[in-house]
Amino acid sequence: MTTSLTTTASRTHPPRIDALVRAVDRRLAQLLQPREGTPRVLHEAMRYCVLNGGKRFRPLVCLGGCEAVGGQVRQALPVACAVELIHSYSLVHDDLPAMDDADQRRGQPSCHRRFGEGAAILVGDALLTRAFEVLSANGTPNTLAILRTIGQASGTTGLIGGQVLDLRLEPRRRKSETRHLEDIARRKTAALITASVVAGGLAGGGRQRALNALRRFGERLGLAFQLKDDLHDGDGLVRAVGREAVEARARRLIDQATQELNPFGQRADVLRALAQWLART
Amino acid sequence: MTTSLTTTASRTHPPRIDALVRAVDRRLAQLLQPREGTPRVLHEAMRYCVLNGGKRFRPLVCLGGCEAVGGQVRQALPVACAVELIHSYSLVHDDLPAMDDADQRRGQPSCHRRFGEGAAILVGDALLTRAFEVLSANGTPNTLAILRTIGQASGTTGLIGGQVLDLRLEPRRRKSETRHLEDIARRKTAALITASVVAGGLAGGGRQRALNALRRFGERLGLAFQLKDDLHDGDGLVRAVGREAVEARARRLIDQATQELNPFGQRADVLRALAQWLART
Repeated sequence: MTTSLTTTASRTHPPRIDALVRAVDRRLAQLLQPREGTPRVLHEAMRYCVLNGGKRFRPLVCLGGCEAVGGQVRQALPVACAVELIHSYSLVHDDLPAMDDADQRRGQPSCHRRFGEGAAILVGDALLTRAFEVLSANGTPNTLAILRTIGQASGTTGLIGGQVLDLRLEPRRRKSETRHLEDIARRKTAALITASVVAGGLAGGGRQRALNALRRFGERLGLAFQLKDDLHDGDGLVRAVGREAVEARARRLIDQATQELNPFGQRADVLRALAQWLART
Repeated sequence: MTTSLTTTASRTHPPRIDALVRAVDRRLAQLLQPREGTPRVLHEAMRYCVLNGGKRFRPLVCLGGCEAVGGQVRQALPVACAVELIHSYSLVHDDLPAMDDADQRRGQPSCHRRFGEGAAILVGDALLTRAFEVLSANGTPNTLAILRTIGQASGTTGLIGGQVLDLRLEPRRRKSETRHLEDIARRKTAALITASVVAGGLAGGGRQRALNALRRFGERLGLAFQLKDDLHDGDGLVRAVGREAVEARARRLIDQATQELNPFGQRADVLRALAQWLART
């Protein structure tokens, strides 16, 4: 569902953001290096599904959250990579024939089309497990809070719950179609983006008041991210309420998100640049 | 692959072990209670796949490891449950049509036969995520070491790596069939059993020397567990080297495992009872 935004507008980032993307890509490649005694095909498939030119929106938001509270990028880099591993696993599983049945991902055959369905299930499982390993190896004082933040956003109330609703595995109850679609967007997209920026803030040693502001920023930016994706695909809420209404709502959300950054001053420049980039796409 | 042992010989446990099984089952039911805002069908399916009368071998080994180092059962109970959630997720995914294509699990329709394939993939993902959430919520000083121990056993070098080899997704290299099958058993079964007992020891505050002994115990007991399963199914190594050779090897491994418990004295009685139970099955 979130393919299109990750493959557009790559050259509109300021140089600082491009440098952060390269740092994330380098670390991801390190984290996915074949380990002694690991089946080679598994690592090859994991690398295929992660090192494929994604725009790393969630890692950037995570690093931006860390900087906003006065932390250093290196403190949040493993967390940023773990979030991308979780995002990648969710795409691999979502693409499976029993789910969205997608043949392509970022212009290449999807994981199961390239490596087979059994392998794709295991690749997703392995990426999710690796994400939690990476988070656990990151022994800062806030590591457990980071783990809980990301675990909750990835679980039944977040990412996975959203996909259950999206697949319509459960009948919709007493909600308008619009609210139902927004509910899916909040869980499937906004929850992990929010967790990314809060976890970045935790990695940078942020206080509760700053973390709360980052959470409000993430919730609004994350929902706007999904609306922009829907605008791109003509999907979801665009079909339900029309293009203009969705465009106006996305603009308002991005404005509100950006206002949450005021207390951070220049430290929030990366987050500001990401919000501006989203507004332009 | 490990179905049969979990459904046999249920009444051969001493009362103490039966009480531990009940404690694990109660806590698992609590951990899988529907959460506010979670799709109901997802929780129903998760409970269906976990609260189904499994013998809880891995949780018992975990609690036994905690007691062996002088810890209290309650210290290791969340860890024991997390290990069972990981074991359950691996069964749900292994049963999928693209993997072992199993219609039944513990005498009931497998998860995908009952809830559909898309749901089964998500149920597995949700159980794995929940396991790491439960581990992260468990704020003892050794929590990060526990997370790393279990993460490693569940990942590409352990559980997932073993399933990749078992599905023959990768060609076998320069190894005899016997060593290849033992390699699969070590990864797919012994790794998580070993991690369970070591994580139990960590939860109980065990020192390095005790943890090392628990690791040697777990490696041997875990491999014997898979051999016993193969004997039950007439599968794996039984087909490769014959029933008698496998029986002798399992007996030797259980003896060696039991010897590792000597330094713990009576504190290791639960682990001893589990080894004796395995020897009898």
